[in-house]
Amino acid sequence: MKPESRKQEIVNAAAILFKEKGYSAVTMRDLATAMGIKAASLYNHIQSKQEILSTIIIELAEEFTTGMNLIVNSDQSAIRKLENIISLHIDVTLRNADGLASLNNDWMHLEEENLLSFEKMRNDYEENFRQIVRKGVDAKEIKSNNIEIIVFSTLSTLRTLYLWYPKQKNIDAGILKKDMIAVLLQGVV
Amino acid sequence: MKPESRKQEIVNAAAILFKEKGYSAVTMRDLATAMGIKAASLYNHIQSKQEILSTIIIELAEEFTTGMNLIVNSDQSAIRKLENIISLHIDVTLRNADGLASLNNDWMHLEEENLLSFEKMRNDYEENFRQIVRKGVDAKEIKSNNIEIIVFSTLSTLRTLYLWYPKQKNIDAGILKKDMIAVLLQGVV
Repeated sequence: MKPESRKQEIVNAAAILFKEKGYSAVTMRDLATAMGIKAASLYNHIQSKQEILSTIIIELAEEFTTGMNLIVNSDQSAIRKLENIISLHIDVTLRNADGLASLNNDWMHLEEENLLSFEKMRNDYEENFRQIVRKGVDAKEIKSNNIEIIVFSTLSTLRTLYLWYPKQKNIDAGILKKDMIAVLLQGVV
Repeated sequence: MKPESRKQEIVNAAAILFKEKGYSAVTMRDLATAMGIKAASLYNHIQSKQEILSTIIIELAEEFTTGMNLIVNSDQSAIRKLENIISLHIDVTLRNADGLASLNNDWMHLEEENLLSFEKMRNDYEENFRQIVRKGVDAKEIKSNNIEIIVFSTLSTLRTLYLWYPKQKNIDAGILKKDMIAVLLQGVV
């Protein structure tokens, strides 16, 4: 692994503070204190708290967008596509649960074009998910329940993974992926 | 339907404001303004903002506790118990989605014994849910996936229903109940 850049260290430390206190309550001074450096030296690497927030959230949103585009444009079955979406969420959660807290709780504090860009990516993501489910139902690969209920039931679980998984001590990533795919796709009974 | 008491009207109006701005940001003055009355007259019915919050949350927590106790002590199969838990969440969401926003977002602002009481009810609820799943797995009614993953996958969906369902215009309560039970229990494929 290559060493993290100073900017990346700042972003990671900020994500933890944003998760604990919320974006609005964190100051650049808090961030400097948490990192044991002077507030002024943060500005050698970053322009503003807003730049940190948008770095965290837009990078994550782009990661989901790239992953979803690969999945939706593949030739696989709807079921395989859903499995890959579940894996995508688990992989991102394992890598960056702190950043996902910002994405979920503080996206509304993004400004101007970053806010618009985020909202577009989120909407496109949901629409791609819905399309996969709809085509799967049409092809009779997926049972014909209400499509919005299917999308919501799956996404609500995947989107709160970042809150739950870090507290689990006895579930390794392999079990998580295997059993979450089984539970979400095949059900529990 | 009997007319709401003045206290209930205050509680309902407060739940909407707490949902929109968060408990901490709402003042008794905001609440009076929203209701078109004088702040002083709120105090004829209620002692404090904290009393309103605890009324909202503890009543809901007791509703879930009572429902869960009936379910867990019944003689039904594990599957039927899970169906009844899903119905319970849907019924409470249909009746009081605004209050559920307070329960989910502002429970940590409860004070002293109300906080302890809430946390105990929430923990007992989860433990009862876990027991139902465990017994269902032991009896081979429920597939043998990781129990924590089963509980999380189901509860994460039920707990975010209050956010999603009020925005749905084309899903009536009957379809919601039928299809959500199908999706959560039988899966999508």
